[in-house]
Amino acid sequence: MKAEILSVGTELLLGEIDDTNASFLSRRLAALGVDVHLRHTVGDNLKRLLQILSSARRRAQVILLTGGLGPTPDDITREALAELTQRPLQTISEAEMQLYQFFAARNREPSHADLKQAMAPRGAELLDNPVGTAPGIWLEHQDVTYIALPGPPPEMREMMDNQILPRLRERVGAEGEGLLYTRFLRLAGLGESQVADQLADLLESQTNPTMALYASPGEVRIRLATKASEEAEAQRIFMPVEQQIRSRLTSAVYGVDDETMEVALGQALLAAQATVAVAESCTGGLVASRITDVPGASRYFLAGYVTYSNEAKTDILGVSPETLEAHGAVSEECAQAMVEGARRRSGADYAIAVTGIAGPSGGSAEKPVGTVYIGVADVEGTTVVHSLWPGSRVQFKQRVSQLALDQLRRRVIGA
Amino acid sequence: MKAEILSVGTELLLGEIDDTNASFLSRRLAALGVDVHLRHTVGDNLKRLLQILSSARRRAQVILLTGGLGPTPDDITREALAELTQRPLQTISEAEMQLYQFFAARNREPSHADLKQAMAPRGAELLDNPVGTAPGIWLEHQDVTYIALPGPPPEMREMMDNQILPRLRERVGAEGEGLLYTRFLRLAGLGESQVADQLADLLESQTNPTMALYASPGEVRIRLATKASEEAEAQRIFMPVEQQIRSRLTSAVYGVDDETMEVALGQALLAAQATVAVAESCTGGLVASRITDVPGASRYFLAGYVTYSNEAKTDILGVSPETLEAHGAVSEECAQAMVEGARRRSGADYAIAVTGIAGPSGGSAEKPVGTVYIGVADVEGTTVVHSLWPGSRVQFKQRVSQLALDQLRRRVIGA
Repeated sequence: MKAEILSVGTELLLGEIDDTNASFLSRRLAALGVDVHLRHTVGDNLKRLLQILSSARRRAQVILLTGGLGPTPDDITREALAELTQRPLQTISEAEMQLYQFFAARNREPSHADLKQAMAPRGAELLDNPVGTAPGIWLEHQDVTYIALPGPPPEMREMMDNQILPRLRERVGAEGEGLLYTRFLRLAGLGESQVADQLADLLESQTNPTMALYASPGEVRIRLATKASEEAEAQRIFMPVEQQIRSRLTSAVYGVDDETMEVALGQALLAAQATVAVAESCTGGLVASRITDVPGASRYFLAGYVTYSNEAKTDILGVSPETLEAHGAVSEECAQAMVEGARRRSGADYAIAVTGIAGPSGGSAEKPVGTVYIGVADVEGTTVVHSLWPGSRVQFKQRVSQLALDQLRRRVIGA
Repeated sequence: MKAEILSVGTELLLGEIDDTNASFLSRRLAALGVDVHLRHTVGDNLKRLLQILSSARRRAQVILLTGGLGPTPDDITREALAELTQRPLQTISEAEMQLYQFFAARNREPSHADLKQAMAPRGAELLDNPVGTAPGIWLEHQDVTYIALPGPPPEMREMMDNQILPRLRERVGAEGEGLLYTRFLRLAGLGESQVADQLADLLESQTNPTMALYASPGEVRIRLATKASEEAEAQRIFMPVEQQIRSRLTSAVYGVDDETMEVALGQALLAAQATVAVAESCTGGLVASRITDVPGASRYFLAGYVTYSNEAKTDILGVSPETLEAHGAVSEECAQAMVEGARRRSGADYAIAVTGIAGPSGGSAEKPVGTVYIGVADVEGTTVVHSLWPGSRVQFKQRVSQLALDQLRRRVIGA
């Protein structure tokens, strides 16, 4: 099955945003074994969109579009599909009703422009958008399937994974091609070259599943891939290789596939029936925010204390003014006092504390920008680790939060 | 001058990397006033690359390619240009010499494959690559300029900025077109269709600068764009339109260009010489984390209290067990007690509190998932606003944090 992907939006052609939708869809289709032959980016221009659609439909069986489904006049995807297939736009009453309900919940009425979003070419299906107002469109016309999804990535991703992929998977399965299955092992605490060294022989000789490394800030992922007729067969192919990797890298493997570090930590805490509290200075609430990104986090997360000022460190966590005076807020001693204070105050089984210099200013020769102390405490005691992560302020916060979560995860699982 | 951009590489079509080259080139060309009408992504496939090139040359005067210039057999950009223009590949002796020197410096001999990189279609110019081995190609053929650059972003960027842009700039200048300048006005608290309604006449009639709306979760941006010979001239063209927009939308305009809501709030607090503290339940630290993403936030941010458990709400913020018992943690009364407690405890001039149901579970008929109460307090009193934001947990946190920051910003500037 051949596919082409069209990204619609003038902001893309101006380079104002990276087209992450196209690469997301490419990955999802590749995983299904669907061949993406071409991708195109078109502005909010009906004539050019029609031109690209006309040539794409001669080459592909599936055409996936993102963007251009909103309520404004420059949203033209719906019109282009109608004109291309010569099917007039019609209002789908169920979608119209949902729009009225959506706006009623916000004490507003949909405008004439908003109601455009309930329209689709005759014979098309509207796809529910549980995250926003613009529904997607699924249209079969002369042996080509057109799938239009909204441009905002959270909406597009949700709809692709929950509505589009299951339908395409069924179709690919019916065509009898083997599906491509992948499994990602996620690692923290090791650099890419360290992982490559420890797995050098496997990386060289391994052919089924294939094996590849991907590095991103704060993490390395190992991708295993194989073609199989079904999930269970793929898992049987992955298992011996995964076991070898795990036996070498042990607790550095924190999760698989979409499991983030905060998910892995949550699972560890649930398994230990333990609770946690967080004290943050330089990460400013990001560690707590990541922990609470996980549904059900209230079962183990009690409280976060973002003690940015010295007064708050003393007031909330009981860090003594003498400690702050003698060692400064960015110090091993302060991290220790913070983490023990957070644990005491919250009554949690575990606590994390982070204090450092996110920059761009505030550094010194002795404690440069990027300096951080991370403390972890439980009933058995407290450890504080010192490290240095130069980079931008936001990057620093991201990396340090990953490190802090990983440090606690290792403590909880006893690694 | 019209341009199309072709990104060449199977790894792009598999979604293994985001195509940041395309957005980089788009930005550079937009800044020159060159209209990028279409972008395409093609795999390492000669037939499809030729197909796209053949149609692109009928539409554009400049075709920019990245990728496919390396020494391996799947690098096909050079061959495609030769075949498209019917100009045979020839070795450029100067480039060949440079290759020999490059390898000699590494005590190696170039292979036959390596030497392919010194070849170009007859009449083409090779472009020096100071960062890698593959030179670029500049080829003029039948009124179309083909520019091929290597795929690795550092090589591509260096060559674009130092070799390609000066030549294109000269050409644009000779054609007497000005450069494109843009200005974004950022809005919060209004939906896209509300903004479109209030600016309907301007959106319809405005031609210089042009005006367009972009919506993303929690915000709408108005893009003004004009061609001008220099920045100051562009600003003179923007000003009257910007003033009209501001006079209609008043405090909904919170910033311009790259200014985020947290930056706008920080500026408002600095101007008022005021401090702030935050109490969060459902946003789990995200509001504090966003405030502290801004360099220098320590000048106005004192503390954040992520009181996830009821015990923490009582312990830290002094929310009475009676309030929690009678109204629940997600209630107007609790939000009020939280925000007043945060202000009292921290000694800050302003405080924000957020309590709600992020989901996916925990909702009820009376208080469904997405329910949120946002409180803002200062010396003059407390206000609590109730609203509903269905969607994923992470999106809920994002939207609600935007709303909370905006609510405080409006209070600080007295809007």
